[in-house]
Parts: sequence; structure tokens; C-alpha cells
Amino acid sequence: MIKDMNAMGLKLKNGQLSILDQSVLPDSVKWLDVHTPEQMAIIIKTMKVRGAPLIGVAAGLSLALFALKTHLDDGAIQEAALLLNNARPTAVNLKYAIEVVTQAVASGSKEQVAQAAIRLFDEDVKTCERLAQYGASLMADGDGVLTHCNAGALATVGVGTALGVLTAGFNNHKSIRLFLDETRPLLQGARLSSWELSQQAIPHTLICDNMAAKLIASGQIQKIFVGADRIALNGDTANKVGTYGLAIVAQHHGVPFYIVAPRSTIDRHCRNGNDIPIEMRPNDELDLYSVVKRQSDPYVRAWNPSFDVTPVELITGIILETGIYTQETMHSDTLEVALCGA
Amino acid sequence: MIKDMNAMGLKLKNGQLSILDQSVLPDSVKWLDVHTPEQMAIIIKTMKVRGAPLIGVAAGLSLALFALKTHLDDGAIQEAALLLNNARPTAVNLKYAIEVVTQAVASGSKEQVAQAAIRLFDEDVKTCERLAQYGASLMADGDGVLTHCNAGALATVGVGTALGVLTAGFNNHKSIRLFLDETRPLLQGARLSSWELSQQAIPHTLICDNMAAKLIASGQIQKIFVGADRIALNGDTANKVGTYGLAIVAQHHGVPFYIVAPRSTIDRHCRNGNDIPIEMRPNDELDLYSVVKRQSDPYVRAWNPSFDVTPVELITGIILETGIYTQETMHSDTLEVALCGA
Repeated sequence: MIKDMNAMGLKLKNGQLSILDQSVLPDSVKWLDVHTPEQMAIIIKTMKVRGAPLIGVAAGLSLALFALKTHLDDGAIQEAALLLNNARPTAVNLKYAIEVVTQAVASGSKEQVAQAAIRLFDEDVKTCERLAQYGASLMADGDGVLTHCNAGALATVGVGTALGVLTAGFNNHKSIRLFLDETRPLLQGARLSSWELSQQAIPHTLICDNMAAKLIASGQIQKIFVGADRIALNGDTANKVGTYGLAIVAQHHGVPFYIVAPRSTIDRHCRNGNDIPIEMRPNDELDLYSVVKRQSDPYVRAWNPSFDVTPVELITGIILETGIYTQETMHSDTLEVALCGA
Repeated sequence: MIKDMNAMGLKLKNGQLSILDQSVLPDSVKWLDVHTPEQMAIIIKTMKVRGAPLIGVAAGLSLALFALKTHLDDGAIQEAALLLNNARPTAVNLKYAIEVVTQAVASGSKEQVAQAAIRLFDEDVKTCERLAQYGASLMADGDGVLTHCNAGALATVGVGTALGVLTAGFNNHKSIRLFLDETRPLLQGARLSSWELSQQAIPHTLICDNMAAKLIASGQIQKIFVGADRIALNGDTANKVGTYGLAIVAQHHGVPFYIVAPRSTIDRHCRNGNDIPIEMRPNDELDLYSVVKRQSDPYVRAWNPSFDVTPVELITGIILETGIYTQETMHSDTLEVALCGA
């Protein structure tokens, strides 16, 4: 049996896992009961649950519950693990969480499976708190800070990664001004981050992604913090599409650009950004919000990558739960150790 | 009496001026009859008509028709001219067109007023053709070309400026691949440019603005062409918000970045970009397309500039109807002559 758990986007109560449907926020708050790993894989694929750390915990919990229900049926668990692993290709936390649970399954102890699931959850909560404190320590009174997409409580089971940094900064310095990219095409900034901040009574300003360059040029932004879906060993970072262009603009204006992510985002198998697979999403996802309803128009098509890769040269620092790694520490020979820890 | 005129976004028939309502394209094709300069000012303000050159011709025609109707009543015409001039602050073609008509009014000849109006229209048609040919001469087989916003037939009374270059390029080299930024918040790329290209049976690919950096990094874009709402004497250029960020990304990747505009876009009173006023649009324009319907939410506000300024250092060349001006010719002492002509 796994103890009850409570997060903004995920609940476990009496062994029943429920997921907040983020695709319909903020218009409606709808919880989905998850009974099987198959269901969870569809929920991940359709982005009803999203955010790299939350995807990891949600998939891990779903697999652990399945393992307990099937009395550690190895074949069925392997199959479910594969299904979950393939639900989305870019976020590596998903692979990490599945590995943690399958290793516990290999021990042959139900108790260890339950403990692994609990550890996934509790670790993320603690990690988010550490990230928020490290990030907030970089802020000064009156800073304007910008983030992209939603790397908040809705993307984790804790206070969030990049958005957790912004809210911690605001709690320390009330004079901090928060800015959010709306984040096309699925508007995670306008829908999710904005909703989260309003829930916490934190004032914030919404911009279209393409306004960031003008906003930065106007001197209103002192620091940028974004999350990550996968970090290569050299520090190259995959995150929601739009991150890369923002990093180029930040460097052009000398504005510090930070990645905020748990260590489980680092992929030991990726030497650099070229090794990170980038998910292409369906055309109609773009059309949905584009007022382009001309599905039968043979002349128009959409190009819709879900992520892009920001090379380490554009990154001022990577904030992990073990500390802040800057260009210098990332480029040293100890990079792998620094990023991956003991 | 002014002769009949026909453009994609404007018609004059038996002295009755009609404007295509671009705010509802491509969902519906709706023409608005314009009877007074007051009406035209509202149509401009609410962006039912948009595109710097088209705004100029539309306002100029409306003022000329009013001048003929009032038998050159100077006081009333001055008042109407002021109203039209203030309808939108950034596009300078508007000021130019109003000046052309008021000068003709000052001559005291109805015939001259009619001729001035006809000249505004015919000049824009010819100018667009020249711009298209200059721009298309820069393209090679297989080029990928990207544009932002709509600087097409819907933004002029001719074939367009930047989009006219893309279509001329496609007509010369069928292997050219066209890419459009959707252009948030009002989606002029996804709604207007895409519609125009489909009308001409030209295949094209739509992206979100924030995907341009990844698209460029992937090697799919060889040249970028955009329009302009106002060009300062040093070459700094105001255009639809998002242009500046795109120019930074283009420079980062060494992709040539061209401005395409009629000479009437140059403002002799602006020494550089700092002199160009930038219009701020209402908050709810952002909300409209953002799924943010929380108008009563006290914690969220929007920042919604309609334009940004791209400094001349990021511009490979400015294509005018008199030729292509590159960094070298723009930075010479003859800049003012080169840009403004005789």
C-alpha cells in the first residue's frame, strides 16, 4: 500500500491515483482517475498531464500501483514500463522514474516498490524547495524576471522548478516583477503559470512570446529562469520550444539566463544536445489555436516541434538541487561529476 | 470624380469606397462601406484595415472623397485629416498619404485632389511590383524563406511588399519553400498571409513565432523578408512586434535579414529608432486569443506593444522601389539621399 499523496496536479488517495487534466485549465478543473498504465500513457501523450518532473512521478506511481496489483508480474510490468517510456520522447525524468520503479520490482519486495514510489514523490518535493531557494538567492530587490512555459507546481509535485524560483523570489522581495511568456501553441504560460500565480495572489504580466525581445531591450528584465526537459552532459538543454530563441535574445542583451531542473533531468547517455531526440507534435495542435480552420486547404501545413535545444554557451547557469553550476564549473573536467553527483 | 479602383483589401466603385474587414478573415469575407473620414478612422483604429501602405491609401482616398463632397471646405478637411492622422501612431505612410491629399486640396482644384488620390493608388501598385522584383532577384533555387506578419496584397493595394517578394520568388523558382510566422497576438501570418498564399495556390508552412529560432538553426531558412511600418533615416526600422527578436536570431545564425517597404515608409523626421513612437494596444487583445478569460482576475495584466524597432545593425538590406540599400550604402553620408531619393 502506498501512502496518500497530494500535489497541485496529482493525488493518491486510498491507492487511487488521480490526475488534474491540464489541457482544460483554467476554464475547468477536472480530475481524471487512472486505473492502468495504458490509461496513464494516453494521458501523457495527449498532454493532459505535462511538465517533465510531474510526468516522471505520475508514470512512476502508475507503474508502482500496477506492480502491486499484479503481485510483481514481471512480464506485464516490463510491457507497461515500455509503454510508459514511449509516451513522450524528450523528457528524461520519465525514463528515470520508470527505472527507479522497475529496479524496486527486481528486488522482489512489494514493500520496496511502495517505498520507491513514495521516494519519487518526496524527493521531488524536497528538490523543488532546494531549487527555489538557490534560484531566489540570485534575485535582488526590484528585479524583473521572465519565464517561459510552465515549470511550476503544475509541472512537479512540489513548488515547481523555474516558476518555483520566481515565487520564492517574490516571497523574499515583494518588489520583484514577474513576467510570463504565453508559450504558443498550447499556452502553458497564459493558461497554467498565470493560473498558478493568481491562486497564490502574485501579480504578474503576460506577454506574447514574440514580445520578449522588446521587453528585454526596454530594460524591464534582469534575469530569465526556465525549466528543462532534458540536459545533456555538456549542459546543452532541451526545453519547451521558444526557449532557444529567448536564450539568443538574452545573450544579445547580456541578461543572465538560467536553467532550473532536478538532477533527474540530466541524461548520462547524451553527450550534447545533438543526442537529444526532439518530439514533433501533430499539425492540428497549431491549427487549434491559430484560427486556421482550413483543414481541407491543400496549400498550408504546420511545422510543430514541441521542444528546442539551447546550447550551453547561451546558458549562464544550471540550477540543480545540489547547487548552481556556472559556465566555468560546467566546462571543467568535473562536469559529469558536477552534474550527476555521486 | 475618382476612377474605379480594385485591390484585394479595398475597392472604389462609382465613388463608393469599400474596405475588406481583415479582422474576420479567413472565417468570413465581409466588405464595409465607408461614408466618412470618422468611419475610416474607427476602421483603422480597430484594425479592420491594417498594413502600413494600405492604411495610407485607404485614409488618403477617404479624405479625398470627403474633400470633393464638401467642395474643398478647408476647415472640415483639416479636422478630418487630423482625425485620420491620429488613428494609428506608428505607420508613417498614413501621414504621407494625408499630406499628399491636403496639399492637393491647398491647390484649390478638385481635379488635382482626384489626381492625387489616383496617384496614391497607382504608385503603390507600381512600387509593389518593383519591390517584388528587387527582392526576388536575391533568391536562389531551393531557398527557404521566412516572413513575419502580413506584408502582402492585403497590406497594400498591389502585390504586397515582403510577401510580394516571396510570391515573386516562388513564381520565378518553383523550388522555393515559404514559411510564415503565425504572428501573435492577432495572427496576421496564420490568418492573412496564409489565406493570400492559398488563394494563389502557393504551398507554405506555418510556424509559431517562437519556433523560428529552431527552424533557422535546422538550416531550413536561407533568407528572411519582412515589411516595415516606419523607417528612420539611419535605417532603424519599426515593424510588427516580433520582428526585432527574429532579426537577433537571424544575425546569430548568419541568415540575411531584409526589410521590404515603399519609400513612403521612411520618416525624414526620425533620425533613428528612438524617435519612432510605438503604439501600445489594449490588454484584452492579448486575452482574446490567449484563452485567458479571467478579466476579473486582479493579479494578471498584459503588456501588448504592437511594434518593435530593429536597429540597422541587424538589417542586411532595405529593399525600396529605388533599389536595394545594404549596410554600406545605408551607413554612408549619402544615406538620406539614398533612402529618400530626389
